Amino acid sequence: MREPTNHNGKATAQLELPGNSTTMKESFMSGAESLVHTLVGSGVDTCFTNPGTSEMHFVAALDRVPGIRCVLGLFEGVATGAADGYARLARKPAATLLHCGPGLANGLANLHNAKRAHVPMVNVIGDHATYHRVFDAPLTADIEGWARPISVWTRTTRCAKTVGIDAATAVQAARNTCGIATLILPSDASWNQGGSPAGRLPIAPPLSTAPDTIAAVARVLRSGEPAALMLTGTGLETDSLATAHRIAAVTHARLLAPTFNRLIERGRGRYPIALLPYPIDHAVAALAGLRHLILVGSQEPVGFFAYPDKPSLMKPNGSIVHVLARPEEDVAGALAALAAELAAPPVPPPPASRPEPAHGPVTSAAVAQTLAALIPEQAIIVDESISFGLGFYPGTRDAAPHDWLQLTGGAIGGGMPLATGAAVAAPGRRVINLEGDGSALYTVQALWTQAREMLDVTTIILSNRKYAILELELANVGANPGRTALDLFYLDSPALDWIRLAAGMGVEAARAETLEEFADLLAASYRRKGPFLIELVIP
Amino acid sequence: MREPTNHNGKATAQLELPGNSTTMKESFMSGAESLVHTLVGSGVDTCFTNPGTSEMHFVAALDRVPGIRCVLGLFEGVATGAADGYARLARKPAATLLHCGPGLANGLANLHNAKRAHVPMVNVIGDHATYHRVFDAPLTADIEGWARPISVWTRTTRCAKTVGIDAATAVQAARNTCGIATLILPSDASWNQGGSPAGRLPIAPPLSTAPDTIAAVARVLRSGEPAALMLTGTGLETDSLATAHRIAAVTHARLLAPTFNRLIERGRGRYPIALLPYPIDHAVAALAGLRHLILVGSQEPVGFFAYPDKPSLMKPNGSIVHVLARPEEDVAGALAALAAELAAPPVPPPPASRPEPAHGPVTSAAVAQTLAALIPEQAIIVDESISFGLGFYPGTRDAAPHDWLQLTGGAIGGGMPLATGAAVAAPGRRVINLEGDGSALYTVQALWTQAREMLDVTTIILSNRKYAILELELANVGANPGRTALDLFYLDSPALDWIRLAAGMGVEAARAETLEEFADLLAASYRRKGPFLIELVIP
Repeated sequence: MREPTNHNGKATAQLELPGNSTTMKESFMSGAESLVHTLVGSGVDTCFTNPGTSEMHFVAALDRVPGIRCVLGLFEGVATGAADGYARLARKPAATLLHCGPGLANGLANLHNAKRAHVPMVNVIGDHATYHRVFDAPLTADIEGWARPISVWTRTTRCAKTVGIDAATAVQAARNTCGIATLILPSDASWNQGGSPAGRLPIAPPLSTAPDTIAAVARVLRSGEPAALMLTGTGLETDSLATAHRIAAVTHARLLAPTFNRLIERGRGRYPIALLPYPIDHAVAALAGLRHLILVGSQEPVGFFAYPDKPSLMKPNGSIVHVLARPEEDVAGALAALAAELAAPPVPPPPASRPEPAHGPVTSAAVAQTLAALIPEQAIIVDESISFGLGFYPGTRDAAPHDWLQLTGGAIGGGMPLATGAAVAAPGRRVINLEGDGSALYTVQALWTQAREMLDVTTIILSNRKYAILELELANVGANPGRTALDLFYLDSPALDWIRLAAGMGVEAARAETLEEFADLLAASYRRKGPFLIELVIP
Repeated sequence: MREPTNHNGKATAQLELPGNSTTMKESFMSGAESLVHTLVGSGVDTCFTNPGTSEMHFVAALDRVPGIRCVLGLFEGVATGAADGYARLARKPAATLLHCGPGLANGLANLHNAKRAHVPMVNVIGDHATYHRVFDAPLTADIEGWARPISVWTRTTRCAKTVGIDAATAVQAARNTCGIATLILPSDASWNQGGSPAGRLPIAPPLSTAPDTIAAVARVLRSGEPAALMLTGTGLETDSLATAHRIAAVTHARLLAPTFNRLIERGRGRYPIALLPYPIDHAVAALAGLRHLILVGSQEPVGFFAYPDKPSLMKPNGSIVHVLARPEEDVAGALAALAAELAAPPVPPPPASRPEPAHGPVTSAAVAQTLAALIPEQAIIVDESISFGLGFYPGTRDAAPHDWLQLTGGAIGGGMPLATGAAVAAPGRRVINLEGDGSALYTVQALWTQAREMLDVTTIILSNRKYAILELELANVGANPGRTALDLFYLDSPALDWIRLAAGMGVEAARAETLEEFADLLAASYRRKGPFLIELVIP
């Protein structure tokens, strides 16, 4: 056997391969088997998949080589969105296994969201045998062309021998950049013998912010001019938020997060942070009066869309943008260095009291209050509630400690798959998925995977039977809806019956028409193993 | 107003604009309005859509300018697959209206199928305002990069003034090539004034086959050496098939179609044609002994996939491939010229007798026989039955005259959208959609559109609760399934309940466990207005 070497130049002849205590004989291993060995050896132990014919040897290898949990989705967008949710909680990449160009295409929208979340992921896309591509069989497509826009790394492996090293490089690329690596696997590279597993490749630590930058930002903050820190990524984990609150306490800088984020650690006893509002006028108002905007792992805030006669950039005229840390840099380290430079002492989190469930009409604020009362300890909230849920985040500030996951790329249909993957990554924690009814239908097949894997996901469908966001946006762009437009916004003819849809995919469900019914069903869902769906009727 | 000219150089100042009897004033028309006027003027009167914010001005323009029927899908793959089905029946392009890169991405798989079907289609993809793209807002994506692999023509229009001419060019490109034209519409090009509708641009007739080629193919056929004509596209319409049968009668050439085709006109009183079998060994056997393979609008037959130790090309060694007509050429004309060269007299279609419904166990052959007995006159069959339905096509040869539509690109999830679009294009004709249960779930949202539009679609779910094709393919590639593989093939934990899924989207449904129940439900579905779904339980 050729001894694979890792990037440190060390021979790894005694590479430990899961499920096989002896050194591998190259001639007895297919490319597919070397792929499984390499993934497992590189720390990838979960694969979200919707496989097809060209992936059959990889599937067969999964039988022979233990160490990877396979989670089946009945549509590829479930698999890619779940890999995103998994990575947000597990802080490491899952693999996806998808079938040829169309299989990748079906997963692209949630890969777009994952790219915007800066999560690591390794796509394995099966393709025709290398010698078969030239014949342009029906499934032949430009896989690399479709993959590149969402990938930090894209490669078509050449043969069985290269599968191992290419897979190890894919994992490395995904982990080094918190991005998506796409490995295209021709079926002959998969089925041929000659596979050679590669060892885990090293990961570079994130770059640190230069001391000069720390000092410069500290000077800005000490100036007393109105300033805000805009944090995202690891900047929204508890330690970073605690540091940010220390900085705010000594400088009076405001703390803000972008409207949409990968994961926010929050709740009672943690350090709260406000989100930049979604409506453009509110966002501009939220930044009004600022002289300095300090980016901590975030981009400069821009309009989610452009609107006639409204600005693209939200910062006030004359304000100055400073970069404390780029998304790929050491955000927590930069915050710690800044706090040290400012000699900012620790501060306790603000006091918070446990909210009580709301009563009365089913309004957005009342639903938020009930959620705040009933979110269980260490819950994972996946928020794709769109229009009706704009107030959910502020309204749940004082809930029990929980993680809040958002749709980062604006590609609707991320919520249910995110919830699925988060539940796979974090067994024992309740996942609560807040879904607009329009959004929920895009990737509704995720419910089946939740039932199959008995995942502890409570899905709340906010059933207003319309694309309410489009009504809002039509007004934002200054147009008045007529009959045709209204017909495209309303989903009430026929109305979607979420109880039956869920049951059709094996998920028990019930309808709530009052806040009290909603609270009862929510609490009941926590007491059961596996998924449950609540259709909350919005009047 | 600047007078738009058409490609013949004629001024079209008096261009007739639907919904507005006077000549347009340029300064009073938005880019979006000019787009609607241009589409209507170019003969596009149907738009399958799932719009978002960036499309709101186009949606508002649809209110102000009559002439386009908008059909809403709750997932973009429904819209693109429906536009494919529409084009197959209407023989002209529909438009799609999709939201930014992710909206296009969700429609790509069925655009891949449509590309392989050689149908005309015009995609309108909304995007950020031109000046907003540079800010990399969350939905920003490489729309052109994703569109090009499935488009014959891709363009991002620059401003309101260019929208009209670009839209007319898109329709022309789609119609000239029977391909997909993708027009990307920045929102400011849509909302700004200055739109100028363009007149319908001319379409070139398809190229004719050279007389030398006709004569050469005639010599081959007269040689008496074993030969087959492989027909697809317009070659599978009744007139072409009648001509092909004349040629076959005087030359003893065999007639074959590829495994997957856009549309086949067939049934009692029409001219039958066999399909190349899907399983590779059967396909090779079907072509064994041939000396000449004559392509009539088709590609050379190749394996749908490569398999270890099996050929990619299916023709016998030593056989010769001749091209009578390429897909974009005049297939019917080439056949007529060849028949004339061969002095082939008309032949009647073969006799056929009406089949009777089958009884006994629910086998593939028995279901085919019942279908053959009960397919109504002028029905449209959409076949995504995959493994269980491999015998449906041969088994329904003697059914009442009908059209048979297939999944041309191998991207699973085409069937339900195809059925939806076909029903929109052909009101008054019953559409029967044969769906594997695995396939059906990919784009299941199409059922809602069928209910909303009251489309006469009978969906038959062949419920075997597994990806049976993968069992078959795993065997084809020589691998044995273990526990992991089997877990990825079986959809029975939990089982999908198609009655509830359909009801959840507003489509009435019933389950059949015997052939007699199946026949009763099938016949009953024809007597009602609107969609119906039958879950046929495969034992």
